[in-house]
Amino acid sequence: MEKHANAATEQSAREQFVTDEVVESFASSNDPRFRQVMQSLVRHLHAFVRDVRLTEEEWNVAINFLRRAGDITTPTRQEFILLSDVLGVSMQTISVNNTAQGDATEATVFGPFFVDDAPIIGNGDDISHGASGQPCWVEGSVKGITGESIPNATIDVWECDEDGFYDVQYDDGRIAARAQLRSDPAGNYGFWGIKPVPYPIPDDGPVGELLKAAGRSPMRASHLHFMVQAPGYRTLVTHIFVAGDTYLETDSVFGVKPSLIKDFVEHGAGEPNATNRVLAGPWVSTRFDIVLAPV
Amino acid sequence: MEKHANAATEQSAREQFVTDEVVESFASSNDPRFRQVMQSLVRHLHAFVRDVRLTEEEWNVAINFLRRAGDITTPTRQEFILLSDVLGVSMQTISVNNTAQGDATEATVFGPFFVDDAPIIGNGDDISHGASGQPCWVEGSVKGITGESIPNATIDVWECDEDGFYDVQYDDGRIAARAQLRSDPAGNYGFWGIKPVPYPIPDDGPVGELLKAAGRSPMRASHLHFMVQAPGYRTLVTHIFVAGDTYLETDSVFGVKPSLIKDFVEHGAGEPNATNRVLAGPWVSTRFDIVLAPV
Repeated sequence: MEKHANAATEQSAREQFVTDEVVESFASSNDPRFRQVMQSLVRHLHAFVRDVRLTEEEWNVAINFLRRAGDITTPTRQEFILLSDVLGVSMQTISVNNTAQGDATEATVFGPFFVDDAPIIGNGDDISHGASGQPCWVEGSVKGITGESIPNATIDVWECDEDGFYDVQYDDGRIAARAQLRSDPAGNYGFWGIKPVPYPIPDDGPVGELLKAAGRSPMRASHLHFMVQAPGYRTLVTHIFVAGDTYLETDSVFGVKPSLIKDFVEHGAGEPNATNRVLAGPWVSTRFDIVLAPV
Repeated sequence: MEKHANAATEQSAREQFVTDEVVESFASSNDPRFRQVMQSLVRHLHAFVRDVRLTEEEWNVAINFLRRAGDITTPTRQEFILLSDVLGVSMQTISVNNTAQGDATEATVFGPFFVDDAPIIGNGDDISHGASGQPCWVEGSVKGITGESIPNATIDVWECDEDGFYDVQYDDGRIAARAQLRSDPAGNYGFWGIKPVPYPIPDDGPVGELLKAAGRSPMRASHLHFMVQAPGYRTLVTHIFVAGDTYLETDSVFGVKPSLIKDFVEHGAGEPNATNRVLAGPWVSTRFDIVLAPV
């Protein structure tokens, strides 16, 4: 029994010795932030190996996974970003960089489909530019956390079409279902878009295998992207989600926050709408009041 | 003050919520070991992001690092293994899989230069087969942790030449500085090799940049590889290191264990040796008594 206890103590000391050696190897870096990040990474990776008693075969599987993730990665298919997304590392990074401040709207993942220089539209205009989908009126206010209205805030919005594809995923150069507008002098905004639909993240690579092994869906909950900027305020990158959507509880990248789920109200074709638009069929509307944190 | 405390509490709750969501997403996997490994990995990765307050720019650097590691990886250049090595993850994995048992010899990294079907030699023979370097006599015993001699143990040995290259790193198909022998009926062994020299791990990729940023050397301490196998015993993969070597304290992959550092004694050309070999110049000798753990 004593011998067993001694062996366990010796083993624990040996494992700690390895961690201490590696942590120490970063101690003489000239960059204190690099040192801090690397030493923390080493401590956590080693603690993981020790906690699960990682086998050498499992280590091989992990190395092989990373190699295959590298093999499938191209400028337009970033498997390491997908990996970060499905492990919630992306969302956790966003969380620590967008700290809670009063009622400031929560941030979520940026995603790979934003493009600069989207068409500029006025309030009440339509962003869809021919993208297929059910018409959707979106309106709201832009305010600060002490309640002040924020006029002239820059609002970028983008979303997929009803087939689940963003314009940039087509190879015909189309620009659709994206635009930039500004809040009006009273700090309000409104535009026509299309009702968001769910779509899968690319799942034909190692990350897809990981999801499958976990019994997880590759689907993202239906959402509409926003990026809101105003001088003196923290830039907000977020989505709104559709209440009742099938994938709210299982969004593959953990982007859903309860505060970002909005009711999308159904309307008949003839029901009056904010812009007196003539609609051929049913449409939906939602409201998203945006609150920006100070810088 | 109260407002500040509330915001901090809310922020902490939001960060924990993300981690809990991701951990939960692996809860319904059918494979309990997969679940355990992934949930622990998620907890540690998220704790790392939270501990260092990883910025979005740093996250980008990390994603880019992994992408570039993938780009440089080929069947003969495994940047992800190098990354694991220089972060001590490889050595920690070996550590947890080769638990302390009595005086059992400690394990260290396997490395990429072992090959099957090395030439079989008898005790007293020479493994160098023309590899350049100072002649080095290596001898020792093979025993179990209760002191029993182990005859007929299979002993693989391999090392680089005095230019720091293994035979497989040359493209001329040479087989040199590697062999397999067996312990004799009394459990002893002995062979001629060459005195180990230090060499760098490949450092022209992202892992090399990481070492440079840390102010770390890419050099491995001089070493001679052993793999020792016998029925009923745990296979031992290890090195012996040269006492007094420049890189013992800074081995780039953390392979050095104090118990594996051996004196390499210098001898004059005319000094008697174990096999009565006629030597043209000075030579060295060392002793490595091997203790195998039971399976």
